Amino acid sequence: MADAIRVTVWNEGRHEKQLDACKEIYPQGMHAVIADFLNAEPDIEARTATLDEPEHGLTDQVLAETDVLTWWGHMAHGEVQDEIVDKVHQRVLDGMGLLCFHSAHFSKIFRKVTGTSCSLKWREIGEKERLWVVQPGHPIVRGIGEYIELPHTEMYGEFFDVPEPDDLIFISWFAGGEVFRSGVCYYRGCGKVFYFRPGHETFPIFKNPQIQKVILNTVRWAAQPGADFKPKVANVEPLEQL
Amino acid sequence: MADAIRVTVWNEGRHEKQLDACKEIYPQGMHAVIADFLNAEPDIEARTATLDEPEHGLTDQVLAETDVLTWWGHMAHGEVQDEIVDKVHQRVLDGMGLLCFHSAHFSKIFRKVTGTSCSLKWREIGEKERLWVVQPGHPIVRGIGEYIELPHTEMYGEFFDVPEPDDLIFISWFAGGEVFRSGVCYYRGCGKVFYFRPGHETFPIFKNPQIQKVILNTVRWAAQPGADFKPKVANVEPLEQL
Amino acid sequence: MADAIRVTVWNEGRHEKQLDACKEIYPQGMHAVIADFLNAEPDIEARTATLDEPEHGLTDQVLAETDVLTWWGHMAHGEVQDEIVDKVHQRVLDGMGLLCFHSAHFSKIFRKVTGTSCSLKWREIGEKERLWVVQPGHPIVRGIGEYIELPHTEMYGEFFDVPEPDDLIFISWFAGGEVFRSGVCYYRGCGKVFYFRPGHETFPIFKNPQIQKVILNTVRWAAQPGADFKPKVANVEPLEQL
Amino acid sequence: MADAIRVTVWNEGRHEKQLDACKEIYPQGMHAVIADFLNAEPDIEARTATLDEPEHGLTDQVLAETDVLTWWGHMAHGEVQDEIVDKVHQRVLDGMGLLCFHSAHFSKIFRKVTGTSCSLKWREIGEKERLWVVQPGHPIVRGIGEYIELPHTEMYGEFFDVPEPDDLIFISWFAGGEVFRSGVCYYRGCGKVFYFRPGHETFPIFKNPQIQKVILNTVRWAAQPGADFKPKVANVEPLEQL
Repeated sequence: MADAIRVTVWNEGRHEKQLDACKEIYPQGMHAVIADFLNAEPDIEARTATLDEPEHGLTDQVLAETDVLTWWGHMAHGEVQDEIVDKVHQRVLDGMGLLCFHSAHFSKIFRKVTGTSCSLKWREIGEKERLWVVQPGHPIVRGIGEYIELPHTEMYGEFFDVPEPDDLIFISWFAGGEVFRSGVCYYRGCGKVFYFRPGHETFPIFKNPQIQKVILNTVRWAAQPGADFKPKVANVEPLEQL
Repeated sequence: MADAIRVTVWNEGRHEKQLDACKEIYPQGMHAVIADFLNAEPDIEARTATLDEPEHGLTDQVLAETDVLTWWGHMAHGEVQDEIVDKVHQRVLDGMGLLCFHSAHFSKIFRKVTGTSCSLKWREIGEKERLWVVQPGHPIVRGIGEYIELPHTEMYGEFFDVPEPDDLIFISWFAGGEVFRSGVCYYRGCGKVFYFRPGHETFPIFKNPQIQKVILNTVRWAAQPGADFKPKVANVEPLEQL
Repeated sequence: MADAIRVTVWNEGRHEKQLDACKEIYPQGMHAVIADFLNAEPDIEARTATLDEPEHGLTDQVLAETDVLTWWGHMAHGEVQDEIVDKVHQRVLDGMGLLCFHSAHFSKIFRKVTGTSCSLKWREIGEKERLWVVQPGHPIVRGIGEYIELPHTEMYGEFFDVPEPDDLIFISWFAGGEVFRSGVCYYRGCGKVFYFRPGHETFPIFKNPQIQKVILNTVRWAAQPGADFKPKVANVEPLEQL
Repeated sequence: MADAIRVTVWNEGRHEKQLDACKEIYPQGMHAVIADFLNAEPDIEARTATLDEPEHGLTDQVLAETDVLTWWGHMAHGEVQDEIVDKVHQRVLDGMGLLCFHSAHFSKIFRKVTGTSCSLKWREIGEKERLWVVQPGHPIVRGIGEYIELPHTEMYGEFFDVPEPDDLIFISWFAGGEVFRSGVCYYRGCGKVFYFRPGHETFPIFKNPQIQKVILNTVRWAAQPGADFKPKVANVEPLEQL
């Protein structure tokens, strides 16, 4: 059998310590819940890493052994060291997958990958969201129906300052009157990047079976085990006689 | 001064004869209203053409003298002759702009240009629509704010079976719970195509100043006066000595 | 084990009968060579169909049982019945993969899918071609290096009148001075379409191991076994209370 | 008459001082030649700025008064202050156009905008280049024929590590056997970015009339006089009653 896909689930991990509403839903942290449902799959091996570990848990070896990295952050984006961000970025260019959740739109790594401010509108009143599928043949939405409905979420609204996505997968409808590009793919170097809007820390989003299905699909789509793309960059000899 | 942009406003023109609600709003036809506000601009010269004229008003000469063609149709798509559709299509490839409104998503010419079924969901209860701008630097939305609000419209919902747009300009929010890609650009050959969702026959959409602004912007974006692109297609001689 | 991917290899099949140079390389037809290397894979079951069979070998049942259809045609595009083309098109929208080779750029099905003329420049002097990979992380080029070199091919040159590809995979260099977008992906409905330039009838292209590798990769990328996408298209009830 | 488009032509300006071959062609610097042909147009007002001026000549006021910034750099990318790069980036998001030439593929601002390494192959033997137009309806190539031929240039070859372009305009053919995506557009925030491959310092590229035509077209395409896009980014009130 093929080698398992190696996923590293990265989490800032602060809200779980500081916010009762979050601690209650995710007593072991969001990363534990995500890693658990990933590890329930026979073809996936997930581990976790968090901000407060040395090198944020993302040593050279961990990164080298990661096929897909998932990222959750919010209140401490600024504490992530630039040097680590640069290493993660290089690994994406070399072929590692990257999956950024929710408030990670403002993470250093996602802004570095997009080249934009990634700003957006927001509102936190627990309104209804409906994520409509607009590219039904994409591997990320295999087995998802026409839409995913979340009864209570934080709203994110346009204008979302990101580049026009390479693939636009989901568009969200919010009860309060806004829309949002909620699932967007970017290709950078040899790597695949997906931003997925859901994932607020005080709604039990990561326990939702459809959300889990999207994450599993994304991990399998983004993984390129063994990928280590090093394009020839050099003063090259002509291939033709001149 | 530069020559004016020559627009031909095409209309099926049946609802205005058969439907009181439409006749009331557009006694001279939607095409008359559209041509009027276009002709109020110093750099635009608009004329009209309708289904029931000989050759649907789209003779070879009219097409040759048209920089941008706008299209409205609904109940009689099937009556448009294939031969005329082919001529319009060829003119688009040669550089003519094409702007399809509302129910023209199902017109022969738009389906020919997209290569898809262009099917969608719909509901006609006069609910609220809000068209959010998602590409703020695009010429089509110059001077439009963050969104356009229409108090009463027909709903169109995803999945809208069109190719991923070359430029996605508007995403609509509907009160009833759906979203829709409401302003989408396609480049075909040398020509520019825009599909714009608004334009229902019994709501006074074409009299809305913001809608008119979008149409004016689109006409100026799509016009390539003098465009008559004929790429060399041949058994060509090598450019290099072999 | 998962069900095999069902491929139907379609061939016009005329050159093999009429042209000695073609007959010599492909005595059983190009379709036989293609089906053979596909059938050597444990996860693929390929059959063939040709123009001169009843319904061109593409009955409703064959189409319903096809996950990926490959298409080769050249001198007899016009003989393919429109009714069959419409059925193939519908199957693509429903999720069947489509892989068009070489001169199939002018096939009815590819022009229907693209919405353009698909015209191009050409020259048949057996010059060198080099297909450069420009999207190294794409599944279609997994295991292919930086480029594929073909010592002798027909030249196809820009301007290639197709829509801007959803994914641009290969760009060809030709010794005579031209370039060409040689590997282009389009998403239509739920289906994936790939146009691949190589495949001339009198050069043994389909016996080239790198070309075979690309075709295998494409079949696995385009296959969505069980896909039968029927989006709800209807006068729908509101999802929200209004 | 409409206000003129305000262009700032930025140049590193080192080769002109240190390299005889460059000094000979551009005794006043490349920026002077570029500004001169821009200023010959009635609708454009160009000024220059260089690395060795205070704040690299890009003060807040200069940036605020710039509709389109052109950028040439090579040997001293690292000397451009990050703070200035951040200001230029913000202005692009707010709507300023950016045109990067040749070796500016490795400039801090272009790498920030793309989110990739922007690495490529290169060779400096003065071989022939032919830039083929692959999007003939784009404003950037209005009046340019099928291709631009440069008899002697430095070669840049794929893989060019940039995101799939929002618009791909030119593909280059090189005598030595490579191809390159030589004219690529990116939309970021409200701003338009164009990377244009030509512009080597020791070939008289900026004096070539077709190259000048492309630059003029690009300036007019990228300019959005008065653009100062500040999307509402906030904790917003619901637009609908909940």
